[in-house]
Amino acid sequence: MARSTDSAPRKHKVTVIGSGNWGTTVAKLVAENTREHPDVFEEDVQMWVYEENVTIPADSPHRAAAGDQPLKLTEVINKYHENVKYLPKVPLPPNVVANPSLLDAVRDSSILIFNLPHEFIGNICKQIKGHILPFARGISCIKGVTVTEDKVELICEYIGETLGIYCGALSGANIANEIANELWCETTIAYNVPPCDSRGENGESGVNGEHYRDARGAISKTQLAPVPQEYPPVDHDVLHKLFNRPYFTVSMVSDVVGVSLAGALKNIVALACGFIEGHGWNMTAKTAVMRRGMLETIQFCQEFFPETVDEMTFWESAGWSDMIVSCTSARNWRYSKMAVERGVSLQEIERTELNGQKLQGISTTKEVMSFLKARGVQDKYPLFKAVEGIVDGTFEVKEIPVLFRQQ
Amino acid sequence: MARSTDSAPRKHKVTVIGSGNWGTTVAKLVAENTREHPDVFEEDVQMWVYEENVTIPADSPHRAAAGDQPLKLTEVINKYHENVKYLPKVPLPPNVVANPSLLDAVRDSSILIFNLPHEFIGNICKQIKGHILPFARGISCIKGVTVTEDKVELICEYIGETLGIYCGALSGANIANEIANELWCETTIAYNVPPCDSRGENGESGVNGEHYRDARGAISKTQLAPVPQEYPPVDHDVLHKLFNRPYFTVSMVSDVVGVSLAGALKNIVALACGFIEGHGWNMTAKTAVMRRGMLETIQFCQEFFPETVDEMTFWESAGWSDMIVSCTSARNWRYSKMAVERGVSLQEIERTELNGQKLQGISTTKEVMSFLKARGVQDKYPLFKAVEGIVDGTFEVKEIPVLFRQQ
Repeated sequence: MARSTDSAPRKHKVTVIGSGNWGTTVAKLVAENTREHPDVFEEDVQMWVYEENVTIPADSPHRAAAGDQPLKLTEVINKYHENVKYLPKVPLPPNVVANPSLLDAVRDSSILIFNLPHEFIGNICKQIKGHILPFARGISCIKGVTVTEDKVELICEYIGETLGIYCGALSGANIANEIANELWCETTIAYNVPPCDSRGENGESGVNGEHYRDARGAISKTQLAPVPQEYPPVDHDVLHKLFNRPYFTVSMVSDVVGVSLAGALKNIVALACGFIEGHGWNMTAKTAVMRRGMLETIQFCQEFFPETVDEMTFWESAGWSDMIVSCTSARNWRYSKMAVERGVSLQEIERTELNGQKLQGISTTKEVMSFLKARGVQDKYPLFKAVEGIVDGTFEVKEIPVLFRQQ
Repeated sequence: MARSTDSAPRKHKVTVIGSGNWGTTVAKLVAENTREHPDVFEEDVQMWVYEENVTIPADSPHRAAAGDQPLKLTEVINKYHENVKYLPKVPLPPNVVANPSLLDAVRDSSILIFNLPHEFIGNICKQIKGHILPFARGISCIKGVTVTEDKVELICEYIGETLGIYCGALSGANIANEIANELWCETTIAYNVPPCDSRGENGESGVNGEHYRDARGAISKTQLAPVPQEYPPVDHDVLHKLFNRPYFTVSMVSDVVGVSLAGALKNIVALACGFIEGHGWNMTAKTAVMRRGMLETIQFCQEFFPETVDEMTFWESAGWSDMIVSCTSARNWRYSKMAVERGVSLQEIERTELNGQKLQGISTTKEVMSFLKARGVQDKYPLFKAVEGIVDGTFEVKEIPVLFRQQ
């Protein structure tokens, strides 16, 4: 790795913010890699854990030692190297260090991995703002975007803008428990290396603090601090070292917009596929709907983010693979199928099956449609529009094939 | 439709060559359309049937009238409007006319639909050569290509070259019985309208008998006879009228090579997906393999047919939809999965499960690999190569993820 000679080499300290099912899984694989690349990363990986009391399950091998009294989750993880509550029965490398203090967990970390539920990210960013390294870099494992009438905001962009750092996105056809158990799959990491981080032949950095041309090709308001010379550059090679495992194949791209939007809009398509199968159509019909959904997704990206979107992104794991898995086994698909089979509304399903919990696909659909309507282009997205109509009870599932005529 | 004024309008006579499960299904939907478009097509649709004796099944409503003695299949179809042997329990429109005479069935037909097993097409073309209208046009519903060390020949090209006519291709994520029962799906028709058939403002044709620039962008040896002025032009609009049904959505493209090769190479990928699932990996791993298989398919088309291939073709039903269905429910997938689960070779499965019948994916794999090896580029197609290795017993299924590293 190119380094400037006048400064001692430093290693990247990595922190995973979040310790649920997916967060703990990512902490596990990242910690396996920091051990394998001691020249690039500090071995210990900090994992911020929302502290709570847990009781070791009766069937756990640790039960005998730990007994049945409530213990702090962080202490359980650090002592028994297992997240008994959110990722039970999966041994974690001892260099995953559970930390109940958010500020202590992110202190001096040069790579921050965000992996917690969508709704908590705003509050988390507020808390750590000003307490992280100015040149820290982020990877968001949180799928989705925030869409309003006015704009589409990628979660990784929100994180970057809020913290004044650059943040990329990890997304793919990934099921946490399978990866935790080292069942092979692949994923996509979108990271558009900021110019100030590009290293020349002999390792000098790009223009310090220049205005950064972000994912959308617009000029960001953020003045980025470059990753110092004494650190390895945070580039595709380093991120591949950090996330790629024999059972988790990482493919690196630069199209953050395409990866993020594919990960969000697929939820609309998953609802449509559930409707289709609930109505009694088969795989052949479902592939037609997935296909149309992907074409509308590509069209959406090309219409609103023409500067940066790369059509090949949609052939990545974050594109078609994630679409297929989401339309075959995920929540939005399962419950929309159930709604049509039972002849009830999705709102009814949320009440009876999800204790009032919301299906992400519904809010994504409404947000995206409000964005399209505000621009008067909703008719160019017949499938997205039909899904909203079905959710609102103004369009019938059996009419879906009509959308496909004369196309 | 633009017509020259000095000739009386003629209608297209349509013949379906083949009367199996898929052939009879296509005859049914085409006959429904000829009735709906009497201005463009003759109502009766000829269906060539390989004559054989059948006995009406005991549970058939026609059994009482027909009794249990053997009857000619053509007579049964024309009397009871049902192909009791190959598409039982599906009523056919009365304007599907079963014909045991191949030459009589194709006589005076301006549109020929080829829909019979791959292995019979050569013999059929020999028989009808010289007995069809010189300006007839064809659509091949036969998937696949013939690949040798020397060349890749599309089936529709073989038909066109042999008969001296132009022939397009129909391919998609289609299951005959579902379509016969009017369960909605979609398909793709690739038809590259020959210049001599293009009609000007006032209906005059292009240059009569000019050398035709075929699917590959090469100059064809065939001198094409143009479709006469008194017939409606055979263009995307007319073909859409002939094949599109409310339950069968047709999308028209011009990329005959992409559609044909996607329909053939998917069989290699289906074998790979069977291996993957037989080994115990799940949908997430399968999507990775489908994705890689599609990328190698696109690469193959772009490497060997750069003039005509359109990347968007692979987003059509004949592309990704057919790939998904083939890798989820079709023969190649099912039996390769079974082979790995049982720890036996595919050849063994062919012996024990298919009475020696061959799996198309195996021959496709060997043909494609011999073509690639003859050009020394097999290493650029790691998945195709691995499938051949697994079939030959020189590569292990568990090594498949290794192909994906560092990509």
